[in-house]
Amino acid sequence: MLIPQTSTSLIETLRLRRQQLANLINFPAILWSGSNSSRNFPANAFPFRASSHFLYFAGLPLSKAAIRLEAGKLELFIDDPSPSSALWHGEMPTREEIAQKIGADVARPMAELESWVEDVATLAVQDAATWTQQSQLLNRWVLPQSPPQGIDLELAKAIVTLRLTHDQAALTQLRKAAAVTVEAHKAGMAATPKAKLEAEVRAAMEGVIIAHNMTTSYNSIVTVHGEVLHNEEYHHPLQSGDLLLSDVGAETQTGWAGDVTRTWPVSGKFSSTQRDIYNVVLAAHDACIAKIHPGIEYGDIHLLAATVIAEGLVELGILQGNPQDLVEMDAHALFFPHGIGHLLGLDVHDMEDLGDLAGYEEGRERSDRFGLSYLRLNRPLRAGMLVTIEPGFYQVPAILNDANVRSKYQNVVNWQRLSEFADVRGIRIEDDVLVTEIGSEVLTAALPNSSSAVEDLVSC
Amino acid sequence: MLIPQTSTSLIETLRLRRQQLANLINFPAILWSGSNSSRNFPANAFPFRASSHFLYFAGLPLSKAAIRLEAGKLELFIDDPSPSSALWHGEMPTREEIAQKIGADVARPMAELESWVEDVATLAVQDAATWTQQSQLLNRWVLPQSPPQGIDLELAKAIVTLRLTHDQAALTQLRKAAAVTVEAHKAGMAATPKAKLEAEVRAAMEGVIIAHNMTTSYNSIVTVHGEVLHNEEYHHPLQSGDLLLSDVGAETQTGWAGDVTRTWPVSGKFSSTQRDIYNVVLAAHDACIAKIHPGIEYGDIHLLAATVIAEGLVELGILQGNPQDLVEMDAHALFFPHGIGHLLGLDVHDMEDLGDLAGYEEGRERSDRFGLSYLRLNRPLRAGMLVTIEPGFYQVPAILNDANVRSKYQNVVNWQRLSEFADVRGIRIEDDVLVTEIGSEVLTAALPNSSSAVEDLVSC
Repeated sequence: MLIPQTSTSLIETLRLRRQQLANLINFPAILWSGSNSSRNFPANAFPFRASSHFLYFAGLPLSKAAIRLEAGKLELFIDDPSPSSALWHGEMPTREEIAQKIGADVARPMAELESWVEDVATLAVQDAATWTQQSQLLNRWVLPQSPPQGIDLELAKAIVTLRLTHDQAALTQLRKAAAVTVEAHKAGMAATPKAKLEAEVRAAMEGVIIAHNMTTSYNSIVTVHGEVLHNEEYHHPLQSGDLLLSDVGAETQTGWAGDVTRTWPVSGKFSSTQRDIYNVVLAAHDACIAKIHPGIEYGDIHLLAATVIAEGLVELGILQGNPQDLVEMDAHALFFPHGIGHLLGLDVHDMEDLGDLAGYEEGRERSDRFGLSYLRLNRPLRAGMLVTIEPGFYQVPAILNDANVRSKYQNVVNWQRLSEFADVRGIRIEDDVLVTEIGSEVLTAALPNSSSAVEDLVSC
Repeated sequence: MLIPQTSTSLIETLRLRRQQLANLINFPAILWSGSNSSRNFPANAFPFRASSHFLYFAGLPLSKAAIRLEAGKLELFIDDPSPSSALWHGEMPTREEIAQKIGADVARPMAELESWVEDVATLAVQDAATWTQQSQLLNRWVLPQSPPQGIDLELAKAIVTLRLTHDQAALTQLRKAAAVTVEAHKAGMAATPKAKLEAEVRAAMEGVIIAHNMTTSYNSIVTVHGEVLHNEEYHHPLQSGDLLLSDVGAETQTGWAGDVTRTWPVSGKFSSTQRDIYNVVLAAHDACIAKIHPGIEYGDIHLLAATVIAEGLVELGILQGNPQDLVEMDAHALFFPHGIGHLLGLDVHDMEDLGDLAGYEEGRERSDRFGLSYLRLNRPLRAGMLVTIEPGFYQVPAILNDANVRSKYQNVVNWQRLSEFADVRGIRIEDDVLVTEIGSEVLTAALPNSSSAVEDLVSC
């Protein structure tokens, strides 16, 4: 385990975070870090990822640890490295050394945790060994798939309040994740002319992330079939008329995520149909970012994207009618079936382990409208929030070939005209946007997104 | 899910494997494939890895599937893709299409599995969602950390018998894994002169694996601190006097593993002390491989490595005494504290999910001798087995600075002489060796290992 350079600022950051928590709840909380999940046999594990809630208050990706937070105090529970572990894992920091790094008030072995569980709230960690331990120690089920209840729910709401907006320490990490993510995308574009398979472009992109000693914040999408929204296959050959859609993000060592999508022509040159649609998506992207400021409803940003896309498609002759009416009947969602974005932080969909508790303002629920049901964020924005803006255009066969859909929208889609855009299967343009006091700042702005700039990056 | 090109040979291979199983057991077995393990929130999962036992008999990395094997028959249980999944995951193959690919006799939805569980044996899958389901359906605990018992143990022994030696289809996959692993190591050596951090070399190596649309078969070790045996940190700077130890392997899409280690000088040139020790390790490596043939005890191969290392260290003046006596008192293990290797197949430590059932001949148990306790394989070798040969030399502080160790071995180690080799912290040379009818074949032989050839690959 690498312990980054001590900094009083880490200690101070963590102290402030738990002080803020103490202002919101008046009961103790224990947050577990989690342990490795096994891959094909117990000793062959997936890379360890600490729980995001733990990382927020403990600052370090410690394995098999827990912290107890009460009234601004930090108690660390972790075992000292075993003597035999030095052979396999080298000299590891002791409990006391770790406690000092993070400014813990007390440090105790894990076995003592059971004496400190009375009336504590917690949040479920993903790996079974840990949620089993949580459930046993607290004598109630603590399950990652079940929404928190009672004081756990109170704790969750308090943590959401804190994590919704980012402090300076978080922003420093998020900027690092954004910078490496940008570099990865540039490497992917540069690698495209010589690549024969999607996998080769993915390798160039993830290579940048690995070289910076970071990890991907989610499973990369690098595909010429952008119409498959969660495409995690990389075996397709790159053909010169294809668009390559890459949704790849870096995550720093303490867990902060980047999340960027670019779509570029394999040949280095958009066809005129590809460029037309690209510019529609980019117009939606730019319009949304221009509107971001404290107080605006994120749902309105989504509807703005829908409107700009509808307008663009009307202009191209693909949709017919008044753009506002088209959006009201969800015609834009034929081609843009997902939400305009989501919260970004320690998780790429930040705090999605808590369901919609973070994404949706209290009292709001998901819409059952086709064009809104996938919206992950529905709150007024506040300074310090980080969100993605990621409009797209896709020709999804499951949608466009559906008989009910075709009949419902037969008069608003010019299917003949649409067929001329067959070389545009999927386009998405996604950036990470910080809400500031005066508007917004695009953390990933160093990555160009105009069609000509993208072409230049592919060809250079 | 990508379904590789149909081949009657896949169907035929699977038919032969289950026919062989039917010759060994007279009760039905159900093998589950497993499901994704979550990372930081349920929808952000680690890449899916199917259970190796399932892969052996089903051939494809299907998620959330099970197969029932009885008397040579193959019954597939898997759900058809849901209509809504087409939006997110594209067109997926149907149950019937998958059944056809693998030559299943029958295909049924998962919900029917509960009608087919009477008197069946199984083996635990690693992810909690699946072993929970296994336990519920079979009405007994099926746990990945507990050794199989009763008919599960009989099933495990039968599967070990099959998987201990590799058929042609397995070897085709293992050769592919070996070839990409070799290429990854060459890329790592070539990237070293320009790299400033371990992470950058790791990126070059894993980039090759990703570009071939494969994954790593275990978490890579790429370190200038080879003396930390399971070092999974990559942040150290590369300095010109350092040796870089890289233990990195590729895994094919159907799960077959490569596992290779090379150690090279960051500067492209071994120091004379580094070259001396390197040649001792290489001599052990070569002597072991030369001895491999059907019938030889793998434990004897381990002792041969120990002897050659002891001889070499006596010649260099680091150890003092008769090499045989030194090995008997485990003096070699001061510098070579692990086993000479292990089985390799669908798992990098093949079938280690079954404890020592595969590694140790029935009736044998781990030695408690310091020099033998970490030996993972203790069986007579047979044609068709694939093993690693991986001798090493390490200056592990936890061993060499231990007061008891120093006192026990004070007369056999020339500590003064040893101090002259301070620039050799860790060296390992590992290849994948197939036992053949007439001796052995090194599947990773395309990767040179002489000190001068390694220097050439770093400098070129």
